[in-house]
Amino acid sequence: NNLSTTVTSQRFTQGCRSLTMETLNPNVKAVEYAVRGPIVLKAVEIEKGLQQGMKRPFEEVIKANIGDAHAMGQQPITFLRQVVALCTCPELLESPAFPEDAKIRARRILQGCGGKSLGSYSDSQGVDCIRKDIAAYLERRDQGVPANWEDIYLTTGASDGIMSILKLLVSGQGLSRTGVMIPIPQYPLYSAAISELEAVQVNYYLDEEHCWALDVNELRRAYWEAKRYCNPKVLCIINPGNPTGQVQSRKCIEDVLHFAYEEKLFVMSDEVYQDNVYSPDCQFHSFKKVLYEMGPEYFDSVELTSFHSTSKGYTGECGFRGGYMEVINMAAEVKAQLVKLLSVRLCPPVSGQAAMDVVVNPPQQGEPSYPQFLKEKMLVLSALAEKAKMTEEILNKVPGIKCNPVQGAMYAFPRIFIPPQAIEEAKALGMPPDMLYCLRLLEETGICIVPGSGFGQKEGTYHFRMTILPPTEKLKVLLEKLSAFHIKFLEEYAALQEPSR
Amino acid sequence: NNLSTTVTSQRFTQGCRSLTMETLNPNVKAVEYAVRGPIVLKAVEIEKGLQQGMKRPFEEVIKANIGDAHAMGQQPITFLRQVVALCTCPELLESPAFPEDAKIRARRILQGCGGKSLGSYSDSQGVDCIRKDIAAYLERRDQGVPANWEDIYLTTGASDGIMSILKLLVSGQGLSRTGVMIPIPQYPLYSAAISELEAVQVNYYLDEEHCWALDVNELRRAYWEAKRYCNPKVLCIINPGNPTGQVQSRKCIEDVLHFAYEEKLFVMSDEVYQDNVYSPDCQFHSFKKVLYEMGPEYFDSVELTSFHSTSKGYTGECGFRGGYMEVINMAAEVKAQLVKLLSVRLCPPVSGQAAMDVVVNPPQQGEPSYPQFLKEKMLVLSALAEKAKMTEEILNKVPGIKCNPVQGAMYAFPRIFIPPQAIEEAKALGMPPDMLYCLRLLEETGICIVPGSGFGQKEGTYHFRMTILPPTEKLKVLLEKLSAFHIKFLEEYAALQEPSR
Repeated sequence: NNLSTTVTSQRFTQGCRSLTMETLNPNVKAVEYAVRGPIVLKAVEIEKGLQQGMKRPFEEVIKANIGDAHAMGQQPITFLRQVVALCTCPELLESPAFPEDAKIRARRILQGCGGKSLGSYSDSQGVDCIRKDIAAYLERRDQGVPANWEDIYLTTGASDGIMSILKLLVSGQGLSRTGVMIPIPQYPLYSAAISELEAVQVNYYLDEEHCWALDVNELRRAYWEAKRYCNPKVLCIINPGNPTGQVQSRKCIEDVLHFAYEEKLFVMSDEVYQDNVYSPDCQFHSFKKVLYEMGPEYFDSVELTSFHSTSKGYTGECGFRGGYMEVINMAAEVKAQLVKLLSVRLCPPVSGQAAMDVVVNPPQQGEPSYPQFLKEKMLVLSALAEKAKMTEEILNKVPGIKCNPVQGAMYAFPRIFIPPQAIEEAKALGMPPDMLYCLRLLEETGICIVPGSGFGQKEGTYHFRMTILPPTEKLKVLLEKLSAFHIKFLEEYAALQEPSR
Repeated sequence: NNLSTTVTSQRFTQGCRSLTMETLNPNVKAVEYAVRGPIVLKAVEIEKGLQQGMKRPFEEVIKANIGDAHAMGQQPITFLRQVVALCTCPELLESPAFPEDAKIRARRILQGCGGKSLGSYSDSQGVDCIRKDIAAYLERRDQGVPANWEDIYLTTGASDGIMSILKLLVSGQGLSRTGVMIPIPQYPLYSAAISELEAVQVNYYLDEEHCWALDVNELRRAYWEAKRYCNPKVLCIINPGNPTGQVQSRKCIEDVLHFAYEEKLFVMSDEVYQDNVYSPDCQFHSFKKVLYEMGPEYFDSVELTSFHSTSKGYTGECGFRGGYMEVINMAAEVKAQLVKLLSVRLCPPVSGQAAMDVVVNPPQQGEPSYPQFLKEKMLVLSALAEKAKMTEEILNKVPGIKCNPVQGAMYAFPRIFIPPQAIEEAKALGMPPDMLYCLRLLEETGICIVPGSGFGQKEGTYHFRMTILPPTEKLKVLLEKLSAFHIKFLEEYAALQEPSR
């Protein structure tokens, strides 16, 4: 039993590991997340090269791959940061530099924290008074539709909430394995979560010809086809759409909820862009409000969870990882299981909860911070609206690019024509054609965008997703560079084609 | 195809849900997490009753169930909060109320954030300069053992890191399913994660007779037994111990690492209590340092990941959900998979990352904040040391309670004698005997502690876990009430026993 002798006899050479690509969890291997995928790794590499003095045909990498507003120069809402700073350093509550309305909110949040400290764990569902503020916000937003604060769960960003709810829903084997219906194109958190949880992905296609509208007949098609190989029981909706930027009409939402009611689907509605609506003829309708207006037969039976976040809207506070979900018509004993599941990770970050509180409870008319708040909010939203329009217009001038109106959210998802020679070249390189396109764009211009293949698209069509977040002037330059690149790309491959004719 | 007609024909009654206890993910159902389990729900219920004026034989509920320092009145470290507040409200960088050393740190952190804002997503691994500060800290802590900042991953508290690593490691079916070796008693995050991931839990027992020491022969027994029904390839260690409070000797760590080397186990070492060592004859040794000292044959081959957090130590910042892990000897392509997995959740909260930065990079001698920092740190740690000793001493005076020294961490895990009549009563009620004990204690005294059955214990033995975090005077009262309760409990059941003789 002398260890040092047995050790030498059983000596393992370096590289002989327990955890290898062969032994790795296959569900992890199957996960894909394009928004931070290979193209972004390449962008980071190029950026570091530039910093070390490497020569490139451009001076900086512009990351239009991710909805990260502050990284693109958007300024934080002063009031939000004041409240969080006051909660962090309560001595500042004595400082005349901070306005009274911010202090009132900070005191109230701290009152709800153990030992009046942001450093205590909160309940796993979140701080009670913040949940109450969220419920009050929902009632205002939905013009009186009742909201129960005990249905509100704070989360670590919306992604965390979506993961937790999906985790509850996945069960069964073979034909009875849970199917999760997601839009195509989708935000790849959904496909990644489905892979990780070994659920079955059921695609329904948004209608690009009609501004990425959701057609309930397509939902029905996807549902009945999926019935042949799984148990489709979850329906995910993203409204306003990511990456597609459409805002669903009230009529469309009602049709979808009818369908969910008929087929007893659990509806997950990702509404993180609810404050990001730019088209004057569009309006955000929450799934919950529409469900309520359909009457108690629907409102008391359709299982609906909706998600919101501090990361989008006009605050853009991604780094705080704040978010919440409202859970409607979930059985009490299942809710207890949800709380148990959440409690293993203890609680969402409390500073993110405080930030969420400000998002749902901003300064009101008459409060000292209101004028500045309103100015800052309007500045962000009007700039976004302007950039949404400009993006659509510039892209649609380019031959071989067709961009639907960016009605909401933070992205354009234009369709791009890729010449057959480029498609062949991509195939030879073992990559999707739009990946080749985006890689070349990155290498030639420093612009980082994400290929449509990372979000899903109809076979034979190609797209990319870009954010509209860079400052207006910079975005304009970016769009012009992109246009020039696209034309050059087409010409180059057209030239390649001619000799072979 | 008219929806309104099909709806009425397919009408579902309320309560006819898609998500029920029957359809719930069975892995979620199997999860248990005693630290926030039924006893804590009961405590919250009683607390709310007291607030509404309900009469009880006590005036307040004292939550000694969870390591939540600030909720028990511990004050935050001023410097940490200053740095986080400066990062949150950079205008404060102009304020003379904040010390220069805090400003230097805040400027440096902001420099590492996109758009110099805490509101940007960081890289999924965390902010580069914080990772570098952590690596520098590790080299200081381990007296020169090299640390590579690219091996550091920021996390959302240690729990999140532990979950992520376990997620990579679980694979195989039947006999080749991943077995995860955990100490008994354990911190129930481990058993919960194992349930959720459908891995196989492999128990090795700590030796209560020898101050909860880890005996490598017991590890070997557990390993070889497990070989018959799974593929035990992960070894989890908690040092200092939770809930057991022991601090592992250097010799013990070396034996464990020898064993891991021999059997090619992936070692996960949970070292979140590394700053919480109270016994003068104990010292914290990191697994990494010991591995290094065993020579390159070991240091270059044993797969080791260690975890740390902002939540424990002398900062106790649980609410910020800050943490990191250091990943040693992981294959480059597996690391890429880890980054991919982390990127789906985008990034850990950036304010938690800033808090982590202060934990590893506190004021140094000569800096303006040093004297106050040192005073605050020593105040917390000396109070904890005093309370650790007091807890052990008072508990050991009670007949039927035996408490090992609380060498480190934040908990006592005493063994309690439960009379046979009480055991029978508990069985009749369908609950573990120590659950009955803790429920009665809660109802009679307002003291909330967690039954040993929630952590695991040798068959036929009973324990509870209590934190040593309440303020000294309050803890003293708590311990005296607990002692009186225990004596009464024994007498009551002894009296029950006599008539039957």
